[in-house]
Amino acid sequence: MPSFTVFKGLKDGSIVETTTTRPDLTADQVLVRITASGLCFTDVHHRHRDIGLGHEGAGVVEAIGPDVKSLKKGDRVGWGYLQNSCGECRECLTGRETFCVRREIYGTANFDQGSMGSHAVWHETFLFRIPEGMSDVDAAPLMCGGATVWAAMELYGIGPTSRVGIIGVGGLGHLAIQFVSKMGAEAVVFSGTNSKEAEARRLGANQFYAVKGKSSINDKELQSSLDCLLVTASDQPNWDLYIPLMAANGKIIPLSVAEGDFKIPYMPMIMKGLTVQGSLVAPRFSHRNMLAFAARNGIKPIINEFPLSVEGIEKAFDVLNEGKMRYRGVLIPQH
Amino acid sequence: MPSFTVFKGLKDGSIVETTTTRPDLTADQVLVRITASGLCFTDVHHRHRDIGLGHEGAGVVEAIGPDVKSLKKGDRVGWGYLQNSCGECRECLTGRETFCVRREIYGTANFDQGSMGSHAVWHETFLFRIPEGMSDVDAAPLMCGGATVWAAMELYGIGPTSRVGIIGVGGLGHLAIQFVSKMGAEAVVFSGTNSKEAEARRLGANQFYAVKGKSSINDKELQSSLDCLLVTASDQPNWDLYIPLMAANGKIIPLSVAEGDFKIPYMPMIMKGLTVQGSLVAPRFSHRNMLAFAARNGIKPIINEFPLSVEGIEKAFDVLNEGKMRYRGVLIPQH
Repeated sequence: MPSFTVFKGLKDGSIVETTTTRPDLTADQVLVRITASGLCFTDVHHRHRDIGLGHEGAGVVEAIGPDVKSLKKGDRVGWGYLQNSCGECRECLTGRETFCVRREIYGTANFDQGSMGSHAVWHETFLFRIPEGMSDVDAAPLMCGGATVWAAMELYGIGPTSRVGIIGVGGLGHLAIQFVSKMGAEAVVFSGTNSKEAEARRLGANQFYAVKGKSSINDKELQSSLDCLLVTASDQPNWDLYIPLMAANGKIIPLSVAEGDFKIPYMPMIMKGLTVQGSLVAPRFSHRNMLAFAARNGIKPIINEFPLSVEGIEKAFDVLNEGKMRYRGVLIPQH
Repeated sequence: MPSFTVFKGLKDGSIVETTTTRPDLTADQVLVRITASGLCFTDVHHRHRDIGLGHEGAGVVEAIGPDVKSLKKGDRVGWGYLQNSCGECRECLTGRETFCVRREIYGTANFDQGSMGSHAVWHETFLFRIPEGMSDVDAAPLMCGGATVWAAMELYGIGPTSRVGIIGVGGLGHLAIQFVSKMGAEAVVFSGTNSKEAEARRLGANQFYAVKGKSSINDKELQSSLDCLLVTASDQPNWDLYIPLMAANGKIIPLSVAEGDFKIPYMPMIMKGLTVQGSLVAPRFSHRNMLAFAARNGIKPIINEFPLSVEGIEKAFDVLNEGKMRYRGVLIPQH
């Protein structure tokens, strides 16, 4: 019976170290020893729920259940937000298992474990091999943050000839810039101030606009030209700024987590034939494509390391909440 | 120099009969004698602008310009909301000329004429032949209303295996039911009361729900099943009612004209991967497909006839504004 350390957030937000004991591995279960965990804004929303925190994990296979087909002890693997799906419904059969109505995702299942812990038990088919040459620490933020921005493009038809607007240079945005740039497409980055411009350009941004306080962007060449707008900032965009920049049939893809309503001016959306596309992490085929693409093209997150401990997790949350993470927090076990 | 009668709406909303004189036909211009004009809600929005009213026309070619290629005197033709486009831009080259930034549409060009008049002059390539067996009177409402609901489905991947929700049984809705039904797909109709149920079912509705005052629709079989929701009612939908019914990656397509913001609950849109799709009438390839499909499958609008005169137009507007049109007003010249 595997027994391992798990970090949870209590109702008052304090982080505690607990122990989970699981039955012996059955079927396609895999016990993973965790080597790195990313910290995502979704964790902030689950911090007060007394559940195992973290859903961007990387680690090493330590033991396998009797029906595991291809993974073996010592293999390096990662996992993300989606933990299981039914395998039978239309969504599962069409490669959109992220939308299976019986899906198990972070915050709805496996409350006794997460990527912040010493180990976790997952189904083999929801684990991803970490490609050669990619470190566990670099892999972890790709398992949710990377998958989220990648699938938004792959599933909704954004490719090498697209001009992609990216709002926000953070955990998602700094990966989006690299994906867009490395596929030969055009990355147009919007950030509050110029403080991240040099880094955004180094990552591949073709254009950079500081938008704080601006009511319009008058660059003529940019009007009606964005095929896609990835919204990675947590505030809802000022549409007066962005709708004029959208190309006909351009896709607006909000990727952050927010309460309340999504609002967009009605007639401008109609008259330009804009799409607002809800998108959620990545189905497995797309997640695999993302990892292979990242490895082949040397795409890496820029990370802030923290110890995977009560104090380390608390500190990482503080940095994230203060808006000071550059650009993704990764928690690493201290041995 | 062609000279013809045109009906306009003045600032105070009164309808007046005026005369337009155009230069001799040049290039690909075609003079059409009007035999029928539909009345669309968009006309209500342009009633006070002193422009030629109407953008759903049918008629007979009376004269052609020197470069007209295939139309000849006596041909029956119709036209809609889109009057011209540049022919050179990406949107024009990819069959989305409705979104050409240099497009000419009703209310932005040709202020001296419309489908409410004795004649009008249009470009040959923006006229559509009316199929054999389809009357001019039946054709007129298809030129905007029919095109609008058809293209929303054809352009955004709705087809024979789709379950399509249709909110509103009116000028657009009663055509949408027929299109969906005749392509062998499933039409689920939502209307305020049961007053239109019998007719909706006769037109092909598979299911009918009266939703006035309802806060949820508990039919278990309907949950998470709508691949598409065509919103043809002018009020914004109560999303608590409809989001639970949407399938994963389902498309919500608002087709009515409205001021202000489009609003939809943020996280439910993300978690189901819903698409909100702005859609505007039909590009020409799709418009042609719609006419051929309607003719082949006996799809006809249900119409209220009015004389094409000052009094007839005023009366038709009154019936429309009172919500009593069953289901599309058509104005017909009295000779």
